[in-house]
Amino acid sequence: MSFLDTLKITADETESTLDELLALNGFTAPRIGEAMRYSALAQGKRLRPFFVCESAKILGANHQNALRVGAALEAVHCYSLVHDDLPAMDDDDLRRGKPTCHIQFDEATAILAGDGLLTIAFEILANQKTHTDPLVRSNLVLELAKASGPNGMVGGQMLDLEAEQRASQSLDEIIKIQSLKTGALFHFSLIAGAILANADQKSFQALATYAEKVGLAFQIADDILDVESTPEALGKATQKDADAGKSTFIDLYGLDGAKQKAKELADSACQALSIFGDKAENLRQAARFIVERKK
Amino acid sequence: MSFLDTLKITADETESTLDELLALNGFTAPRIGEAMRYSALAQGKRLRPFFVCESAKILGANHQNALRVGAALEAVHCYSLVHDDLPAMDDDDLRRGKPTCHIQFDEATAILAGDGLLTIAFEILANQKTHTDPLVRSNLVLELAKASGPNGMVGGQMLDLEAEQRASQSLDEIIKIQSLKTGALFHFSLIAGAILANADQKSFQALATYAEKVGLAFQIADDILDVESTPEALGKATQKDADAGKSTFIDLYGLDGAKQKAKELADSACQALSIFGDKAENLRQAARFIVERKK
Repeated sequence: MSFLDTLKITADETESTLDELLALNGFTAPRIGEAMRYSALAQGKRLRPFFVCESAKILGANHQNALRVGAALEAVHCYSLVHDDLPAMDDDDLRRGKPTCHIQFDEATAILAGDGLLTIAFEILANQKTHTDPLVRSNLVLELAKASGPNGMVGGQMLDLEAEQRASQSLDEIIKIQSLKTGALFHFSLIAGAILANADQKSFQALATYAEKVGLAFQIADDILDVESTPEALGKATQKDADAGKSTFIDLYGLDGAKQKAKELADSACQALSIFGDKAENLRQAARFIVERKK
Repeated sequence: MSFLDTLKITADETESTLDELLALNGFTAPRIGEAMRYSALAQGKRLRPFFVCESAKILGANHQNALRVGAALEAVHCYSLVHDDLPAMDDDDLRRGKPTCHIQFDEATAILAGDGLLTIAFEILANQKTHTDPLVRSNLVLELAKASGPNGMVGGQMLDLEAEQRASQSLDEIIKIQSLKTGALFHFSLIAGAILANADQKSFQALATYAEKVGLAFQIADDILDVESTPEALGKATQKDADAGKSTFIDLYGLDGAKQKAKELADSACQALSIFGDKAENLRQAARFIVERKK
C-alpha cells in the first residue's frame, strides 16, 4: 500500500476512534461534548496519529492500541489549536476553513472544550484498553504530559507569545520555540510506538532523531506555505507571521534557502531510520511528503 | 495532634512539595513558571491535599507519596480557578486577596499557566516517585482525569455557565452541577488514599460516601459565606451568585434551612467512616470544620 493510502486509512481510523471516544451520549454536559467534537473531529491530515501507528507497526506493537494513543495525542493537538485561536492568544476566526471553536460556540465554551480535550487524552491513555501493561500506560502518560506541558508545547507557546513582543529573533531562538511548540508532540508521536512495543534504546533513539528532523522540516515547510499559499488553499489566514512582525525561517534562510534546508532535514530524518530497513519506508515517504505538501 | 494542627502541617508540606515540583529554574519559559507558581503557591487551606493525606494515613499508605498526589490535585484545583477567573468565564479580579492570574500577568499567560498546571498534574502522578507500582500510578491518572474532565469538574463548569443563562434552577440541577464542579475533586481526594494503599472495596465505598456528603456540605457552606461574609474576610467578591441571578442552596432551603442541611450532611459524612474507628477522627473533625468555617 502506498504512503498516501496508509495516511488516508490511518486518518479514517483515527476519526472513528475519536468519534467513539467522544460519543455525544457520554457527556453529562452536552454543550462541552459538542464543542469538543467540533474541534477534534474531521480535522486535518492526522499526521501525528499516523506517526504513532507507523512507529508501532515497525516495532510490532498492537495497531488498536496505537490508534487509541493516536486519538489521545490528536485530542491534545486539537486542544492546543482551540486555545491558540482564542482572542487573547492568536485571535483567529478561521481554522481549516471552518469558524474556530470560540466563534462557533463562545469563548468560555472554547476554553472549557480545550481543557476537556487535554484532560480526556490522559483518561484515554490510562484506560487499560490502551495497553494491558500498566507500566506502558503510565509511561505514555508521563511522556505525553512532558511533551505537552510547560517544558514542551505550552512552554513553546509562551516563548512564541513573548517573541512577538520583540523586534526580531535569532535562529537559535526560533528553533528552540519550534522544537517545543511543534517538535515535542512530533517526538511523542514517534516514541509512542516504541513505548507500546517495549522497544530497545536504539529504536527509541532512531525514532527520536527522525522526529527532531521531521518536526523542524514541518515547521520550515509551514513558513514556506505561509508566504506561498492562499487562505483558500490552506483554510486559514496566511502571512500571519509577517503581519505579526514575527521572524520566520524564511527571514533567516531566504525562500530558496528554506526550501533547501527543509529538504536536507527530510534527508537526515530518513537516514536516522536505517536500522529499521524497508519497514520504515512509509516514514521515509512521510518525511518527503512533509516538505513537498501544498497545504 | 489536633485537627487544625494537622491541617496546617499538611498545608505547609503541600506548599514545600509544590515549591519543589514547580522550581523556577526548571522552566524553559520562565514566564509560564512564574504564573504557575503565582497561581499554585501560598493558596488556601489545602483541604484537598489534607483529604489525600488523611485517607492515605487511615489505610497505611506512604505519606510522601500522598503529598505528591495532593500536590498534583492542588495543581488541578488551582488551574480550574485560573481559568474560571478569566474574563470570558467569571471575570474575577480578586482571588484570596490577590489579583487573579490574568490581572497580575495577562490573559494569554493565564490561559497557558492553567494549561500548564493541568498538564503537570498528570506528569507528577505518572512519575515513579509517586508510587513504585505502575498500576497505582495509572489508576491515579485515570481517576484524576475522570474527576477533572468533561464528565467531572469541567463538565460542571459548563453546566454552571449554562445555568446562569436561565431564570432559576431546581434543587436537582444545583446538586448535579455542584457534585461535578466541586464534588468530583473531593471524591478523588478521598479515594486517592485508597488507591495508594490498594484498599478493599468497603474502604473505597466509605470514603466515597464521606466525600459526597462533605462535598455538598462544603458547597452549601460556601453559599452561606457568600451572603454572610465580606470581601475582606473571604479575599474575594461576595454576593456574586445573587448578582449573577444564579440560584443557590439558600434560595432553595432558606438561610437557616441551609445551615441545618449542611450540619446534617456533615453528620452523615461522619457516620460513613464508622468502619475506620478512631483512625478517622481527623476526617470527622474536618467535616464539622467545613460547615463551621468563617472563610
